[in-house]
This record gives sequence, structure tokens and C-alpha cells, in this order.
Amino acid sequence: MKSLLLSILFLLIFSNCPTLVAQSATQPDSAEILRILHVISEQQKAWNAGNISGYMEGYWKSDSLLFTSGGNIQRGWNATWEKYRKSYDSKEKMGALYFSNLEVNVLSPGSAWIFGDWELKRKNDNPKGVFTLILKKFPDGWKIIHDHTSSKK
Amino acid sequence: MKSLLLSILFLLIFSNCPTLVAQSATQPDSAEILRILHVISEQQKAWNAGNISGYMEGYWKSDSLLFTSGGNIQRGWNATWEKYRKSYDSKEKMGALYFSNLEVNVLSPGSAWIFGDWELKRKNDNPKGVFTLILKKFPDGWKIIHDHTSSKK
Repeated sequence: MKSLLLSILFLLIFSNCPTLVAQSATQPDSAEILRILHVISEQQKAWNAGNISGYMEGYWKSDSLLFTSGGNIQRGWNATWEKYRKSYDSKEKMGALYFSNLEVNVLSPGSAWIFGDWELKRKNDNPKGVFTLILKKFPDGWKIIHDHTSSKK
Repeated sequence: MKSLLLSILFLLIFSNCPTLVAQSATQPDSAEILRILHVISEQQKAWNAGNISGYMEGYWKSDSLLFTSGGNIQRGWNATWEKYRKSYDSKEKMGALYFSNLEVNVLSPGSAWIFGDWELKRKNDNPKGVFTLILKKFPDGWKIIHDHTSSKK
């Protein structure tokens, strides 16, 4: 039942129905889950608008941000931003980003993690895989403090 | 300074000096970090003794355990155990497991995450990469509830 509710909430937040989302979020924990999911729904929107800076807003603006993908490690928000800017320097390389099968797990009032599938739909290829995000709640909202992204072989 | 302390604690826990470890762990947070690190030091010991069941003791014995490596996903302790048993069915395949550059991050009194490097030293190859572990504190101690392991390309 909880999974069903989350699926509905997810469908709502990842479609363009902000009013419906607000109405569904009557329980505090559901509201918190929505706020957590909002971080990556905003990232997805920014990415698909070709806006890397907007995408980066989801990450903790700190030298302690830890990003890893394909065994490579970026430490800090600036290094992560540079990596994204260099790897995705055209709309073609960015393609269209999709998240699916998202699972939000709240660890404490101030910490949570998300596991899910990612996929880039591009003209010539279709990379995909899974990601683990660890998020902390800061005065300005939930931010990703760690991103571990893997590609499917 | 905190990093230095952790490095010393790490050296102590990953060598065979249990008495020294106990003496160093005077602050409650350091003691908790040692208890968290103890989970994977026990895993390492078990692995290097060819004991997969012992290695599995570090994981949450639940259908909700989530393990991912190389884009593949195992859900639940049993599925994870089966995967390990099939993939590492000889001492040669298991090789010798080493962890390094371990970072422990406590999120709340009952949750933490570890990031680090792994390496298998085997006769014919030397796979390596990074891992993210999310741990929760249960009545019987800290357990890994999520393991995201990547190989270096």
C-alpha cells in the first residue's frame, strides 16, 4: 500500500500536476518524501532544458560533496560541476534524462537515500544504469551529499 | 585532525590490535565509528578465510537488503548470498580482499554510510573499484542495508 502511494506520488511529481501533488501530501512523511523527490525532479527538468547549472542545484554546494561514476571520483561541488560541463558540453551529449523505479528511504528526520534507474536517450546511444543518492536536509532544503552512479554493462 | 584520528583508528582496527583499539576509543563518537568499521573489518577477515557465510553477517538479514554491482541488482539477503556463492565458488575466485581509503560518515545516531576502495588480489587478475555502504544500527548492531559497488574501468 505504501509502495502504491509512493508510485502515485511519483507519477504526480514527475508529471506536471503540482496542485494534485500538494493535495496528496497530507501526511508529514509523504510531504517529506515529496520534498526529497522534488530535488531530483528539478534536476531532471533542468537537465532536459540543457541547464547544467540548474541540474547542479540538487547537489550540496560543498567541498565535501562526493560524486562517483564508473570508478572515477569527483570531490567537491566545483569538481563535479567541471566534470559535468566537460562531459556534457552539447545538447546532443546531454540527451534526454529519465529516472524510473525510484525508491526513497528516510533514515532520520535529516537524512535519506534514493535508489533508482537512470537512462539517457540520445541520438546515437542509450546509456543507462542505477544510482544511489544520499541526501541531507539543510536550512535551504534537501541536498545530495553523495552520488554513486553505475552504468549497466 | 579528525582525519588523522580516523586514520589511526582505522590502522588499529584493520591490524590485529584489539586491545589498542579499545584504549583509543575514549570518545563516544569514535567508539561508534569503530563499531561501524568493525562490520567491514569482520567481512574482510571472513572473506580472506574463504568464509562467505561469515562475510554475509555484515549485511542486514532482510528481504529489503539492496545490493547492486555492475548495474545488476540483488534484492534481499538470500539473493545476495546466492549471488556471492555462485560468483565466488572457489578460494581462487575469492582471492584476497582489501579495503582502503575508508570514509565513515554518521548521518544520525542510527544511520551511517561508508565510502571506500575495494580490491581483490587474485592469481590472474586484480579487479578493483569503489563502494558505498549505507548502514543502520539494529538491536544486534550495525548492519549494511545497501551496498552499491562499482568496478574501475
